[in-house]
Amino acid sequence: MADTKGVTNTRRIRVEWGHCDPGDIVFYPQYFAWFDACTTHLFESVGLSPKSFFADFGLKGMPLLEASAKFHAASGFGDEIEAESVIVEWGNKTFKVTHRFTRGKTLLLEGMETRIFVTAHPDDPTRLKSVPVPKDVKRRFEG
Amino acid sequence: MADTKGVTNTRRIRVEWGHCDPGDIVFYPQYFAWFDACTTHLFESVGLSPKSFFADFGLKGMPLLEASAKFHAASGFGDEIEAESVIVEWGNKTFKVTHRFTRGKTLLLEGMETRIFVTAHPDDPTRLKSVPVPKDVKRRFEG
Amino acid sequence: MADTKGVTNTRRIRVEWGHCDPGDIVFYPQYFAWFDACTTHLFESVGLSPKSFFADFGLKGMPLLEASAKFHAASGFGDEIEAESVIVEWGNKTFKVTHRFTRGKTLLLEGMETRIFVTAHPDDPTRLKSVPVPKDVKRRFEG
Amino acid sequence: MADTKGVTNTRRIRVEWGHCDPGDIVFYPQYFAWFDACTTHLFESVGLSPKSFFADFGLKGMPLLEASAKFHAASGFGDEIEAESVIVEWGNKTFKVTHRFTRGKTLLLEGMETRIFVTAHPDDPTRLKSVPVPKDVKRRFEG
Repeated sequence: MADTKGVTNTRRIRVEWGHCDPGDIVFYPQYFAWFDACTTHLFESVGLSPKSFFADFGLKGMPLLEASAKFHAASGFGDEIEAESVIVEWGNKTFKVTHRFTRGKTLLLEGMETRIFVTAHPDDPTRLKSVPVPKDVKRRFEG
Repeated sequence: MADTKGVTNTRRIRVEWGHCDPGDIVFYPQYFAWFDACTTHLFESVGLSPKSFFADFGLKGMPLLEASAKFHAASGFGDEIEAESVIVEWGNKTFKVTHRFTRGKTLLLEGMETRIFVTAHPDDPTRLKSVPVPKDVKRRFEG
Repeated sequence: MADTKGVTNTRRIRVEWGHCDPGDIVFYPQYFAWFDACTTHLFESVGLSPKSFFADFGLKGMPLLEASAKFHAASGFGDEIEAESVIVEWGNKTFKVTHRFTRGKTLLLEGMETRIFVTAHPDDPTRLKSVPVPKDVKRRFEG
Repeated sequence: MADTKGVTNTRRIRVEWGHCDPGDIVFYPQYFAWFDACTTHLFESVGLSPKSFFADFGLKGMPLLEASAKFHAASGFGDEIEAESVIVEWGNKTFKVTHRFTRGKTLLLEGMETRIFVTAHPDDPTRLKSVPVPKDVKRRFEG
């Protein structure tokens, strides 16, 4: 894999009551749900819309090989978070996205996801099969 | 930090419809929600009950420094998963839990959480303050 | 619609940290997620397994027409809840399930769901189409 | 209770992958999570900010007495939903909010929540106690 200077997408996220736990901070798995949405929005930012992207490329999803986060500061109810996402690596079948969440000048957390592209398995549509990174997808992120 | 042979706790998890996404597999942040519950149950297995543990030790929670997962196989609606959790490291202020999820003989994923213990900050009860690992807590895991 | 004395299924639910909000009680939408799982388990209790039920009957899901809950008492982290579910009405295309949640002798909440059965639309597999209640499904609940 | 012509607040909601289930539509409890957030934003629209509202009025939350929804049409991944919320009734201790979700001209669902205001119980801070509707809160919605 080679590092790739990718398209960066930034979103604002509002922390709601239901995102938080009895410690009065965001329940940490929620950050991974936001990572997932941030990745969708990153693809959308290069014209790969959620309504058509999977159908256009015959995909069933982009499941994870790996996900991680390092937490630096907590956030809580009513906070406005800025989330910055970028694809930092492309493999033959994989890509790695990093997410950086800040609140004002405070770094809240840094996370990453390594994902693959899958289609329905030709022999059994209930199973998933990984496929190479579609060239047209990768090209969009290279500008 | 030194490695610690810890108490292992095993739970069965049932995958429900609402845990899964349009790819017909578990939405991956859900695994982290299960990690969190598995950690609670691990503490409960050594007598640290969710109803009294935090109050007994003056804690407000056990927030995360780091969390990660490596995904090996997918799981879907109706699956019965076995989750095995153990604390593998104790620091002065931190501990590291690993979680291993299997379905029958299939390894689904491996994850870890590094956490700290926090109390309400003495100067401002709306803030959190980390505290050393309570000795009585650590001792319970040493058998 | 006629009232039907149906099969009752009872489950135990454990309230985890992530189910609760900063008010230290269960975040109320979580109860509806449990309703959904309780309905699955009710079907499973009459032999309609989540792994095969939808495939056997060509179904794509059982979406909601209506859902409601009346909340009588709160529950929180570490609580053990008992959930009792029963189908109280069958229509031509609908069925109504009620759910009753208790903690010991305390009634926590009562809820209901009215659902339909859907298949993929024959003209457009991305759309859903409601179908009559399968007779073999209804019969199972009549004992 | 008397009907009240209230302040209406409208929000846009984007349906993400993780909001949807294997039926390729929004998992219905998610709509209630959005109701909850819509109620927060309705309060915010009259100047009752999530960061200070509860503290200013000594509140611990606004738990539910009742919640319900009628579902008219499904929504799925990538949809943009418009959610319109208004308080339609004030009681001495209760208020009722209605939520109306549309996608373009399509009515998706209609929901309602009846809520109370609670403080920490004076005799036992781990319990909750309902309090009358704060006059200053109600006044804001009367314009």
